[in-house]
Order: sequence, then structure tokens, then C-alpha cells
Amino acid sequence: MAADEKQIRQLVETWMSATKRGDLDTVLALMAEDVVFLVPGQAPMVGKAAYAAATRAQKGATIDGRSQIQEVVVLGEWAWLRQQLTVVITPAGGGSTTVRAGHTLSILRKEQGRWVLSRDANLLARVD
Amino acid sequence: MAADEKQIRQLVETWMSATKRGDLDTVLALMAEDVVFLVPGQAPMVGKAAYAAATRAQKGATIDGRSQIQEVVVLGEWAWLRQQLTVVITPAGGGSTTVRAGHTLSILRKEQGRWVLSRDANLLARVD
Repeated sequence: MAADEKQIRQLVETWMSATKRGDLDTVLALMAEDVVFLVPGQAPMVGKAAYAAATRAQKGATIDGRSQIQEVVVLGEWAWLRQQLTVVITPAGGGSTTVRAGHTLSILRKEQGRWVLSRDANLLARVD
Repeated sequence: MAADEKQIRQLVETWMSATKRGDLDTVLALMAEDVVFLVPGQAPMVGKAAYAAATRAQKGATIDGRSQIQEVVVLGEWAWLRQQLTVVITPAGGGSTTVRAGHTLSILRKEQGRWVLSRDANLLARVD
């Protein structure tokens, strides 16, 4: 496997583990300043600050994601990535969990030798 | 504007106009054989034949889309595209319309000098 693909797979793993332990700073370091997150039925969420605010609004919920990478295509300083993702969200202090599952399609960019998330389309839907 | 970006914008226009007039063959010619369509809460739809079957299942509904292209980035023989899209669906013979709106994030590929759709994440949600 080429070095770039390895680094992108490592980015996904780091994202998941940092999200699980609530390490927002580490997650923010994995995205471009102008990152755009797309989800169904909402306006795009643009920039790191918006991501940070949305995460803080979760008020300490534990977010445990499991990713299966379906495709990674590296195009020089850009790449795209398709994942199948399942996320289990547990509110702070416990309580009933929410499960969301589906796919993501992401655009990544190499900035100063490091891959970061640039655009992300999140198609996860609630699983009952 | 560079030639590739022009051709990609033309692809979007052709897709919309052919879809509106129910010209499935023209739409199919704008996608790669291994095209993958992602929508929320469903398994990926893979390949032209699946797209054709899904379109035929609409039984002659008129699908009138309006696209606003937000970003086009050309990377040699690949490109990615973000659109804001509104689609008005009218059943065959008239009846009440359904409106869906939102964003798409797409990966395109240049095959034998022609741009085609390769991966598409459709985040449109129903507007009431």
C-alpha cells in the first residue's frame, strides 16, 4: 500500500479514536481550515469553529464510530475516500444510545505534507 | 474558465435537461459503468443498470432539477463537484409535486476524453 493511502487510513483511525475519547483538539487538527461538512436536510457546516461548536453542543456524549474503508483514490495532493460507517452515540452520564449508519464520501487534501479532511458528505441515517 | 470545468458544467446541464424530458439514454451516457450513487439510509446503488431500473420505477414522473454549482476542482483525469440542488418531482398524469433540496458531492472521471459521473453523494431531503 502506498504511503499516502496508509496516511489516509491512519487519519481515519485517529479521527475515530480521538472522537471516542472526546479529544476535540486532535480531531480539529485532522481537518482543513475551510472544511465543509454536508449532511441531509441541513445547510453546509463550514470551518473548524463550526465543527467545534457542534461537538461542544453534544455536551460530553460518547461517540463510538466504526469505519470500513471502501475506496481510497489518491490524486497527487488530493484524494477521495468512501467509507461505510456506524456510529453509536451515548449521552453523558449514560442513557439510551442512538445508532447511525451509512456511508460517507470525503475529499482530502495534503497540506504541508499532512493529509486533512477538506469536504465531507455524511449520509448516515438513524437505525432503529 | 478552463475547458475541463466548462465540460463538467455542460455535463450538469445536459443531465438536468435530459432528466426533465425523460431521456434516460442520454443520462446513462453521462455516467461511468461502475458509477456509485449514495443516498441517506440506503445501500449504495451501483452501476448504470441499477440507475436505469430506479428511473423506470418512477413510472414517467417528471423530474425538474435546478442546480447551482458551488465548487468544481479538476485534478487531471479526475474532478470533484459540489452542487446545491432543488428537484421538483411531478407524478405521471399530474398530481401533487414533491420537492427535494440540498447538496451533492460528486466525483467525476475523464474517460476517453469525456467527463462522466463516477461517485455521487446525494444529501437532498424533502422540503414540506
